[in-house]
Amino acid sequence: MNRRDFLGKTAVAAGAAATTIGAPAVWAQGKKYHWKMVTTWPPNFPVLQVGAERFAKRVKEATEGRITIDVFAGGELVPALGCFDAVSAGTVELFSGAAYYWAGKVPSAQWFSSVPFGLNPQGINTWFYAGEGLKLWEECYAPFNLVPRPQGNTGVQMGGWFRKEMNTMADWKGLKMRIPGLGGKVVAKAGGTVVLLPGGEIFTSLERGVIDAVEWVGPLHDLRLGLYKAAQYYYYPGWHEPGTCLEVTFNKKVYDGLPSDLKVILDSVAAETNIWSLSEFESSNGAALEELINKHHVQLKEFPAEMLVQLGKLSTEVLEEEAAKDPQSKKVNEAFKKFRSQIGPWGTVSEKAYYDRIFGKYALKTT
Amino acid sequence: MNRRDFLGKTAVAAGAAATTIGAPAVWAQGKKYHWKMVTTWPPNFPVLQVGAERFAKRVKEATEGRITIDVFAGGELVPALGCFDAVSAGTVELFSGAAYYWAGKVPSAQWFSSVPFGLNPQGINTWFYAGEGLKLWEECYAPFNLVPRPQGNTGVQMGGWFRKEMNTMADWKGLKMRIPGLGGKVVAKAGGTVVLLPGGEIFTSLERGVIDAVEWVGPLHDLRLGLYKAAQYYYYPGWHEPGTCLEVTFNKKVYDGLPSDLKVILDSVAAETNIWSLSEFESSNGAALEELINKHHVQLKEFPAEMLVQLGKLSTEVLEEEAAKDPQSKKVNEAFKKFRSQIGPWGTVSEKAYYDRIFGKYALKTT
Repeated sequence: MNRRDFLGKTAVAAGAAATTIGAPAVWAQGKKYHWKMVTTWPPNFPVLQVGAERFAKRVKEATEGRITIDVFAGGELVPALGCFDAVSAGTVELFSGAAYYWAGKVPSAQWFSSVPFGLNPQGINTWFYAGEGLKLWEECYAPFNLVPRPQGNTGVQMGGWFRKEMNTMADWKGLKMRIPGLGGKVVAKAGGTVVLLPGGEIFTSLERGVIDAVEWVGPLHDLRLGLYKAAQYYYYPGWHEPGTCLEVTFNKKVYDGLPSDLKVILDSVAAETNIWSLSEFESSNGAALEELINKHHVQLKEFPAEMLVQLGKLSTEVLEEEAAKDPQSKKVNEAFKKFRSQIGPWGTVSEKAYYDRIFGKYALKTT
Repeated sequence: MNRRDFLGKTAVAAGAAATTIGAPAVWAQGKKYHWKMVTTWPPNFPVLQVGAERFAKRVKEATEGRITIDVFAGGELVPALGCFDAVSAGTVELFSGAAYYWAGKVPSAQWFSSVPFGLNPQGINTWFYAGEGLKLWEECYAPFNLVPRPQGNTGVQMGGWFRKEMNTMADWKGLKMRIPGLGGKVVAKAGGTVVLLPGGEIFTSLERGVIDAVEWVGPLHDLRLGLYKAAQYYYYPGWHEPGTCLEVTFNKKVYDGLPSDLKVILDSVAAETNIWSLSEFESSNGAALEELINKHHVQLKEFPAEMLVQLGKLSTEVLEEEAAKDPQSKKVNEAFKKFRSQIGPWGTVSEKAYYDRIFGKYALKTT
């Protein structure tokens, strides 16, 4: 008979023998939690769903099974976009997703995933772990009984697949593009027509020319969806999502009721999953991009510099318009801009200079 | 009487009542560890010593005191550069440092901290968490009974403080510079004279003109040392250390003997400390650089592009020469180059393009 068989039968299965000592702390320490985690991702979705499952596995290992989490992909238990409500209501203990999905309920949430011409992964991590980003995020979620933690990052995304070359701003006029969220608002401002499509219809719509362009994620996921078979030009950079942060979000009552050691373990494993996830993206995107270029002969193209200047201006307009709609968004947008202006000069002499002058030898030779 | 008073008296203080069940797993779970951690950093050294202390605190919290770690700064228990030997011998359980300090014992260790014209933080993290970097590092340390984990990153460092302008490669000839390690070998190849100085003598030597230049870390630490009072020109980027990884390294017997939940907690808190540390550096360097520019009127200068091309070539020569001296270094250097060529094209279209086209609005206006 091992200890788990002996003790593990009930939810409040403290070290039963130890309880004879009578200290309440013993009960708290020994309590076991069996949770459900829902996600916004399809089953087996690389890095994202896999990352949610990795988080659950590491939490179980680190707690020796005091917390076990069953993970359900989008639609398996609740609809993908029902995660927020399910955890808010306490039906489910936690979810993994991306904050901009909840813009309809919490407009300010968008700044905590990614906004057009926003922060790269290192920037948003700095805002969360050493700035006031996480505190603001917690404030925005608290009325919904939710506690968010950064849990991953896609890295800088790609600009998307286009069936025609993009040379001037005039090329956006009338362009039918699948691009959700704030990026879509920028494209609409540029004269494009934004088309919303479920993931399952993207490939066919692009292949048949029902739409002219689509943004998805980056090389790893785009290769898997076969988008290179449906459009010729693969544009970078992903100005609309330059480093999308993923979240693990807990029901506040569940999180707040935990003993402090388990809170530290959850926070720590979330941070570990964050750094693991970006590393996985970086590594896998490297391999997938090579395959797209060398095996599938994709035409990799950079958006023209002047076009990006114009898209940047439209993005600022969109962000200011969004911020003006809602006091909380305004507060978050102002904090976001202030933070950027504080770290911008340092980024110029460190990472920007690195990519300008040090990185070069291993860079892709583009023309 | 609480449980800790009751159980915490001896090193093998398992849940005493629970031991009546007689399962060995119970002993392992309940065992308490009281460790010493030595570091290579001065007391209160921002982010680095503070990060080692944060690691210890988080481990204690996450394990509810099953692991407590007393942290000793460099010289407090063993000399700063005695950490490796002390943990290797098992006198002390773990240390925090940077792998290039051990080049005299393990030449290949240099690639796991930072090498001239090497990887930035995101790159080296990808090598460790999603490539073969950590496996190689473990291989190199195993003969010394050590298990390394990434635990922090300084970010891209600064190029250093110079008492004269650096315009052409000829300006390196005869330059007396405090720059240790591989960076120093590159400066020597360029015709400079490398001077080794303990941290405490750096400021005075530079101020009195005994040396002409010094590299230290970045704005936060350089401001603290007052280097702006001793030299006029502050050059970027830190080509010699473009993202130095810090380590927490365990005695192998200690680490391997732990129950698996504690290993996961240590690894997870190390990863959390890694992302926290880089975030702290980024945030604090931003504020310190602003103070250096606006309050102390430092002349911030970029090394000329052509000079960096030449320094890059000399750096490659130095790395190849180092690799040729030792089969393990050769293996690591080849793996390092292969990894870089695999992620280089992706870096070009993601982070490099981000800094070229998206970041700009908040960048420092340099002339």
